[in-house]
Amino acid sequence: MEKVLLTGFEPFDGERLNPSWEAVRQLQGHVLSDGSQIFTIQLPCVFDIARQNMTDALDSLQPWMVLAVGQAGGRAELSFERVAINLDDARIPDNAGQQPIDRPVIPNGPAAWFTTLPVKSIVLALQEAGIPAGISHSAGTYVCNHVFYGLMHQASRRPSLAKAGFVHIPYLPEQAARQPKPQPSMPLAQMVSGLELALETAVNTRVDCKISAGSTH
Amino acid sequence: MEKVLLTGFEPFDGERLNPSWEAVRQLQGHVLSDGSQIFTIQLPCVFDIARQNMTDALDSLQPWMVLAVGQAGGRAELSFERVAINLDDARIPDNAGQQPIDRPVIPNGPAAWFTTLPVKSIVLALQEAGIPAGISHSAGTYVCNHVFYGLMHQASRRPSLAKAGFVHIPYLPEQAARQPKPQPSMPLAQMVSGLELALETAVNTRVDCKISAGSTH
Amino acid sequence: MEKVLLTGFEPFDGERLNPSWEAVRQLQGHVLSDGSQIFTIQLPCVFDIARQNMTDALDSLQPWMVLAVGQAGGRAELSFERVAINLDDARIPDNAGQQPIDRPVIPNGPAAWFTTLPVKSIVLALQEAGIPAGISHSAGTYVCNHVFYGLMHQASRRPSLAKAGFVHIPYLPEQAARQPKPQPSMPLAQMVSGLELALETAVNTRVDCKISAGSTH
Amino acid sequence: MEKVLLTGFEPFDGERLNPSWEAVRQLQGHVLSDGSQIFTIQLPCVFDIARQNMTDALDSLQPWMVLAVGQAGGRAELSFERVAINLDDARIPDNAGQQPIDRPVIPNGPAAWFTTLPVKSIVLALQEAGIPAGISHSAGTYVCNHVFYGLMHQASRRPSLAKAGFVHIPYLPEQAARQPKPQPSMPLAQMVSGLELALETAVNTRVDCKISAGSTH
Repeated sequence: MEKVLLTGFEPFDGERLNPSWEAVRQLQGHVLSDGSQIFTIQLPCVFDIARQNMTDALDSLQPWMVLAVGQAGGRAELSFERVAINLDDARIPDNAGQQPIDRPVIPNGPAAWFTTLPVKSIVLALQEAGIPAGISHSAGTYVCNHVFYGLMHQASRRPSLAKAGFVHIPYLPEQAARQPKPQPSMPLAQMVSGLELALETAVNTRVDCKISAGSTH
Repeated sequence: MEKVLLTGFEPFDGERLNPSWEAVRQLQGHVLSDGSQIFTIQLPCVFDIARQNMTDALDSLQPWMVLAVGQAGGRAELSFERVAINLDDARIPDNAGQQPIDRPVIPNGPAAWFTTLPVKSIVLALQEAGIPAGISHSAGTYVCNHVFYGLMHQASRRPSLAKAGFVHIPYLPEQAARQPKPQPSMPLAQMVSGLELALETAVNTRVDCKISAGSTH
Repeated sequence: MEKVLLTGFEPFDGERLNPSWEAVRQLQGHVLSDGSQIFTIQLPCVFDIARQNMTDALDSLQPWMVLAVGQAGGRAELSFERVAINLDDARIPDNAGQQPIDRPVIPNGPAAWFTTLPVKSIVLALQEAGIPAGISHSAGTYVCNHVFYGLMHQASRRPSLAKAGFVHIPYLPEQAARQPKPQPSMPLAQMVSGLELALETAVNTRVDCKISAGSTH
Repeated sequence: MEKVLLTGFEPFDGERLNPSWEAVRQLQGHVLSDGSQIFTIQLPCVFDIARQNMTDALDSLQPWMVLAVGQAGGRAELSFERVAINLDDARIPDNAGQQPIDRPVIPNGPAAWFTTLPVKSIVLALQEAGIPAGISHSAGTYVCNHVFYGLMHQASRRPSLAKAGFVHIPYLPEQAARQPKPQPSMPLAQMVSGLELALETAVNTRVDCKISAGSTH
């Protein structure tokens, strides 16, 4: 049986929950249309350890596809990341109190890795299904980008890991309701539908479509 | 039987649907905890006619409470309006092609009317239920404000119309998914829950609570 | 000699300066093209006292025109307010520690007062001069709106006070440079030019032009 | 005499001017504190040709430092780019009508190049001087990123080109004044001061400081 790995994060930055894990856990054991089965793990919001846990899961599960999911409070859509950069620059401490500034994720690693998911096809499929989705060109410089970079670095040396990438997701409505200023949100059920449709689209897309999704700056 | 009137708008500005009507129509015939029954009408996005239709509905239904609902693309929450102003200033033509600029909604009417809904209690109840909600101090100068002003003007001379107000709601996800730039959205089911909870809270609140929800500018 | 009163505020909310006073003081004694001379005062960021100080200045100076200026951190342009509402709802305490919630500025006063400045002509003139400017339909519910409402209330009973209004201005660059997130700003010299041009335009405009500057919500 | 190259762009996207060139041209011939002289060129907003023109200028001038400047309408500060990615994805056609989608800037080039300017020290110096400034982790996927990537690719094989980077700058006030919605802006004089201070800081900084300027997503 082919395996797909879906990862979410534990809560951080004072939040009581993390929508990435709330959404991901709903898809544990789910079987995609090609027969692949979804496995899920929760990653700590901690530099290095989160990345090591990801690598350990790649070793033990040997998935052919991985989608890592993280919270991006303030974004309004499922935001598929195009590129991971080799830079840690933490604005706030992680859950272990570490706050690395201007160090590489992996010393001597390449400056960046591009996602190998068909992100244009995925965004198109989600928009057609009425789920707000888009492409992002920066996953930040915190634990999300750190894990994403580590994932793509591993993928580059694991030929069986054909497709890998990262998606940032909005606040849940109950999180947005507690913010001092209005913030976009997305209900859990829609996040779960969106993640499932993203994986299905990745399963069924051999060559990504070339629609424009760039930004002028 | 006591009646509550809930109004929504037809689509405008090139949209194929209006979330206000999609949400409102789901509550047609619904009975609130005090036994009041909800009646719904769709208003045209047309100056004067929308306001006249509202007045006609007040005449025929004699509701004791009215909540008018309108779309506010770009807002992230259920946004309860505090005040309606006596000003039409249309940025775009209405659905009949009218574009009034700097004329009063009602000549010689007062400069503004405040809502008579307990908006602080409503927002608090929604936030506690995990539904993003807030207070707004401007309903704009288009058909929404026009209808809101007309409604409050009527309420001021109808003692039996105890509570009246207006709420702006976000895009539906399928609308946001079609926008060129990321936009906040809220699913229909959550809008409907939010409107119902708002009405229930209004039914059960005798004196509004005094929590701060102001803005410095 | 005809007099014009221009007011600014003292710093608040932890800021070390208030751009409104920094800009206003530059125009002390300046003579406009019709021979009117500008007088300036600084108002405290304190409910009631700021409004009383304004009334005292109206009594002593007997100006024929008044423009009150206040800081609106986060706005990107000179933002001419259309309407003042009869509501105090403080999100943060004022400089005297008062935080009124949901009380009228003036008990039994009208719900709102519209500006009597030709704000459309002013905005047009500023934009043509390359100075970002616009119309706002809410001055908030803090000390700025409080002073604006008090000013217009006084103007309504002083026939000699022909034109009065309020403009919100952005952060100065040095304030924006200290904010944790990127914020729009405007240099002092441009603010001063903008205020002077606004007053000149008000002097030379008999009937305001009717250009659309409304908002749909 | 040591040379510093400063580049700006021609107008694009329907604008009549480009603040990057307006600012850059003011510094033509200026001598920095270490005796380096500033040379300036205007680049076309055209894929490939802009990059080739940059390379030609590197060949002919042999500068030891290069700062490329581009317009980023909507940003509020001088926004120093951290990383250029090997991706063209044009949202709108360039000035020659080309709209490349999902192709590399340089086939088989590395996925990204980091700036070699001391961007943390620069941002700190500007903020202390009261000029809004910050770090960005995405220069987009249009001609700006294209030129930035090409520049850093050249720098990687030219040991004498010690420092190179890119800064995105806001609209000028006269551009912002013409936008339909409020947009941040910065006057020309402040942009020029900011660029000069950035270059001076780069001249005088041997090792960049490690202050946090990261983003969580």
